[in-house]
Amino acid sequence: MSNFRLGIISSIYNGIPKEAGITRIEFEGPEIAVYVKNPSVMNDKMDIVKKIVKEIKKRIVIKADSSVRKDEKETIEIIKSSVPPEAQVTDIKFDDELGEVLIKAKKPGLVIGKRGLIQQKIFMETYWRPVIIREPPIKSRTVEGVLTHIYNETEYRSKILKTFGERIHRELLFKDRYVRITALGAFQEVGRSAVLVETPESRILMDVGVNPSVNFGERMFPKLDIDQLRLEDVDAVVLTHAHLDHSGMIPFLFKYGYEGPVYTTQPTRDIMALMQLDLLDVAEKEGRPLPYSAKEVRKELLHTITLDYEEVTDIAPDIRLTFYNAGHIIGSAMAHLHIGEGVHNLVYTGDFKYARTRLLDRAVSEFPRVDTLIMETTYGAQVQTNREQSESDLVDVINKTVRNGGKVLIPVLAVGRGQEIMLVINDAMKRKLIPEVPVYVTGLFDEVTAIHTAYPEWLGKEVRDSILFRDENPFTSEFFKRIEGYRDDIAESGEPSVILATSGMLNGGPAVEFFKQLAPDSKNSIIFVSYQAEGTLGRKVRDGAREIQIIGRDGRIDNIKVNMEVKAIDGFSGHSDQRQLLKFLEDIAPKPKNILLNHGEPTAIREFKKRISFNREKERLGLRTSSIYDPGILDSIRIV
Amino acid sequence: MSNFRLGIISSIYNGIPKEAGITRIEFEGPEIAVYVKNPSVMNDKMDIVKKIVKEIKKRIVIKADSSVRKDEKETIEIIKSSVPPEAQVTDIKFDDELGEVLIKAKKPGLVIGKRGLIQQKIFMETYWRPVIIREPPIKSRTVEGVLTHIYNETEYRSKILKTFGERIHRELLFKDRYVRITALGAFQEVGRSAVLVETPESRILMDVGVNPSVNFGERMFPKLDIDQLRLEDVDAVVLTHAHLDHSGMIPFLFKYGYEGPVYTTQPTRDIMALMQLDLLDVAEKEGRPLPYSAKEVRKELLHTITLDYEEVTDIAPDIRLTFYNAGHIIGSAMAHLHIGEGVHNLVYTGDFKYARTRLLDRAVSEFPRVDTLIMETTYGAQVQTNREQSESDLVDVINKTVRNGGKVLIPVLAVGRGQEIMLVINDAMKRKLIPEVPVYVTGLFDEVTAIHTAYPEWLGKEVRDSILFRDENPFTSEFFKRIEGYRDDIAESGEPSVILATSGMLNGGPAVEFFKQLAPDSKNSIIFVSYQAEGTLGRKVRDGAREIQIIGRDGRIDNIKVNMEVKAIDGFSGHSDQRQLLKFLEDIAPKPKNILLNHGEPTAIREFKKRISFNREKERLGLRTSSIYDPGILDSIRIV
Repeated sequence: MSNFRLGIISSIYNGIPKEAGITRIEFEGPEIAVYVKNPSVMNDKMDIVKKIVKEIKKRIVIKADSSVRKDEKETIEIIKSSVPPEAQVTDIKFDDELGEVLIKAKKPGLVIGKRGLIQQKIFMETYWRPVIIREPPIKSRTVEGVLTHIYNETEYRSKILKTFGERIHRELLFKDRYVRITALGAFQEVGRSAVLVETPESRILMDVGVNPSVNFGERMFPKLDIDQLRLEDVDAVVLTHAHLDHSGMIPFLFKYGYEGPVYTTQPTRDIMALMQLDLLDVAEKEGRPLPYSAKEVRKELLHTITLDYEEVTDIAPDIRLTFYNAGHIIGSAMAHLHIGEGVHNLVYTGDFKYARTRLLDRAVSEFPRVDTLIMETTYGAQVQTNREQSESDLVDVINKTVRNGGKVLIPVLAVGRGQEIMLVINDAMKRKLIPEVPVYVTGLFDEVTAIHTAYPEWLGKEVRDSILFRDENPFTSEFFKRIEGYRDDIAESGEPSVILATSGMLNGGPAVEFFKQLAPDSKNSIIFVSYQAEGTLGRKVRDGAREIQIIGRDGRIDNIKVNMEVKAIDGFSGHSDQRQLLKFLEDIAPKPKNILLNHGEPTAIREFKKRISFNREKERLGLRTSSIYDPGILDSIRIV
Repeated sequence: MSNFRLGIISSIYNGIPKEAGITRIEFEGPEIAVYVKNPSVMNDKMDIVKKIVKEIKKRIVIKADSSVRKDEKETIEIIKSSVPPEAQVTDIKFDDELGEVLIKAKKPGLVIGKRGLIQQKIFMETYWRPVIIREPPIKSRTVEGVLTHIYNETEYRSKILKTFGERIHRELLFKDRYVRITALGAFQEVGRSAVLVETPESRILMDVGVNPSVNFGERMFPKLDIDQLRLEDVDAVVLTHAHLDHSGMIPFLFKYGYEGPVYTTQPTRDIMALMQLDLLDVAEKEGRPLPYSAKEVRKELLHTITLDYEEVTDIAPDIRLTFYNAGHIIGSAMAHLHIGEGVHNLVYTGDFKYARTRLLDRAVSEFPRVDTLIMETTYGAQVQTNREQSESDLVDVINKTVRNGGKVLIPVLAVGRGQEIMLVINDAMKRKLIPEVPVYVTGLFDEVTAIHTAYPEWLGKEVRDSILFRDENPFTSEFFKRIEGYRDDIAESGEPSVILATSGMLNGGPAVEFFKQLAPDSKNSIIFVSYQAEGTLGRKVRDGAREIQIIGRDGRIDNIKVNMEVKAIDGFSGHSDQRQLLKFLEDIAPKPKNILLNHGEPTAIREFKKRISFNREKERLGLRTSSIYDPGILDSIRIV
């Protein structure tokens, strides 16, 4: 055992009262679990634990030794009698290895109790540590499946957590200091995001995505096959959000030898798995080779450690990770790496929205420290329509179409913009700005909405408060009719309606089927609310094509006349536009010494770099002494 | 065996006449050796070989099968009878493994014969391939030792050459293309030169030096302990010249697992070994830990493959190396890498002098192709006194001192400037510009001069012609008195003299002993002709210190009064000054797309970069579209 771990262990033994009866101390991932015979001794002594935490700067969890835990049946009884029935507990699962009991409830707040008193009571009376999870109002097979999978593999999970824990708390070896950033993907381009951070001690991969606009060849994946990257030596994968261009290749790492942890948020974990499995599904249907299989997605889930925003976590002997809200999609995060004791602080924004949306709060711009900023620049050269105007445009098109007896098709991406549009429509209908017509929601997008309902704590303040405190959940609003896939009867009925369906670029899913039916009728309309990539059907329609050939998977060719009204609204983007990127730089505190621009087409990055390099603008943004870099793939920049 | 090698072999079998009787084809390093039973068949058929060489783009050597070679005694007889006695053959050595006979002679040209006829005759009559080497007029234990060592290990050498050969001619594996340059040492600094060139197929290290101004710690060595560099995967080490800041850490690679070839020129090989052994010697005397031992220097020598200037050589499956004269010291080279078939061309200047000196021709500035230039910038911010003025200054000081009955001490670096000063003094004495007084030469420098006399072909045109065609060797001129170390009788005699002694910065060697004796007498003078590093005794004296304490290795302290005349002359540098660097950029053809500045203090690089970045200057130099980079250590730049 390393001297470093021995030091921690002896601090704990010296600090915790003898009567507690420590039986073992385990490094479980980033946490240190102290197993004791008499947890009750610790009940009013949490100050002692806090003191030790402050001393060793590690997270400590007090757990009960398995010999003193109540049996499962008795524990279930105690939980049921302690929790008020309004909490609606739906499931209880045990993790013998980690001494945890998972309690799933429709109202998890009532299981926790005021100031956590019920949660604490359960622990003290059963000696099982309660982990409390929300049963979503819209049933999500993803959330269900992920949890079942994890609780079926408690032995494996406990074993790897210990492996991670020992690796994280290994001895520091080098006197030498450097921090080096290498661009592996999404530099001078959008797609296949991946950044490598190297110190003499550790290697961290941030995001490992696919390039969704490419179906084959080397440009589909980040540059992972270089000498610099040995998967078995990577300490951690940090995932900022669930979109496939950031998460899509993580299972691939496990296929080729990676055995370490994946750090992300809870919503990202679930959506990421859903998206990855969908990627496999689509590739299989289209007869393309699969980069990995569902087996690796399952392994990735067992290796995932979820973190809350602003929770400081050791992920390597010299690196601490903290996530901050990025405002892009649910669970999206900016990653803050604190490297060495004060050596360097790095913020990687991932995709971020520096403006409040209906779904999410504005991204964070204040950090304890920042030396280097890696910042997305998707819309570095573009100003979007503001949100109020965009919402009013959306309402106008819906009103006009419905008044004419037509149907409105809104193709939505599975994650993010669809849910935002639901909130806009729900609000407009409630306020009678648009007539009450059925709003059909369908496709992969609907499952993602269900996941949103499992994690209301991760939504913006307004919608979060509405769900948690006023019991008004816009996603379960009566206006929305959830349907399975495409439905002829809806497309062909004379009744006006709004249809939200994936995919967002009309390259698959029920949206295409609805489009085929609705396009020829000039009474109908289609509203694009997200980016339409070159080469997609959505792009063709948006650009004004009046006649379109669609080749079905069965090889049948449909000739479609497009007579419906076509409208594109750009103000719902989950990315910051140029003004918001500039505002973020103006607001960020403290000011970074180095700024690396990534995740943008070369023109966007070039223009944004030029823009912030003018002396007056630099001065205005408080970046007079900052260096601005626009690296390309396989460039490395040493920042310390 | 790879299909690639099979293809080459079948081209050779198909091309060479059956009667030649091929017995084996070996990949011996970058060469392909074809062993035949009847070499005489090939005598008038070299056109056939040339045709095959053109087809397969590989170097082919026809050798005789060992079964048909004459025995050693008979071969010696044939050589003696074929070579005129004026050639003065001094040694004959056999390499059974490679079928070569080494012939050492004072006049190697006479062994080769007109148009190579004698050399060819020896091969045809003995079936041994003659390798002809000069016996230097000044005996060099280095040249002697290196050759003896190599010829003692012919079996090992033949074995590793085959390993190299198979590695060089391996199959290409990747469709993907990139070329990446990583700064490992001597970027934003001078010392510890090292550059890594990576493609998907190969890795090349160019120079691996020590930092002579640092005696310990991580700044002493290039950054070799990074994930990106696995010594066992490096295809080749390319060494541009023998100075320790470029060569000093190569043996270290062999200590830590490198098993590949070192490509350099013949003079560099010998001087490098001498310098490395001296480094070990000094470190040992000063009680510092040794980074490697003589064992690794010996291994390095066996792994060294020497190349002539402008000889194109495969060093990896996708990389060809060509050396060009760099004009810095004897054997110094610029390295040209041709990567992929036309993918990219890289020139790394190493240290270079873009001006003719007495010792060497001006560095080359025309290349078949150049896309990226890595260029030294030591004097990027400094203009030196011109050579004529410097020579005249030197002559003046010597004249004045000698006239006053004093002695002139010229501390010289072991390699390069000392020999240049010898040429200046020899010429001045011959032309009676200075009186004929004894010129003593002593120290490591003298052994290096001996090595110069072994390789007159590598000197500048004027001195080369003088030695080879007019039989006038300035290094063996009667003006020079070679002595061992320090001599009291010389220092104390009343007779005026000139003393050339190492070390050049007065931090060791006989120069310090002479200095102690000569400094107090105002009749004497000291002339510094090379850079004096911060912290050295030379720097203190040059900067005008009038009283100096010298602590000897035995701990004795000498208080020395400096009354002698002190003069520094900066025009003898082996580096290009700012004007010469600019002229090189003006002349270089074709024009590089990327220029990376290295080997300079940050101020020198900053000023030179600024200077060549002004639009008008860029235009004048023909570099309007070139990008200029000034990377730091551990930065990587992808150039393709």
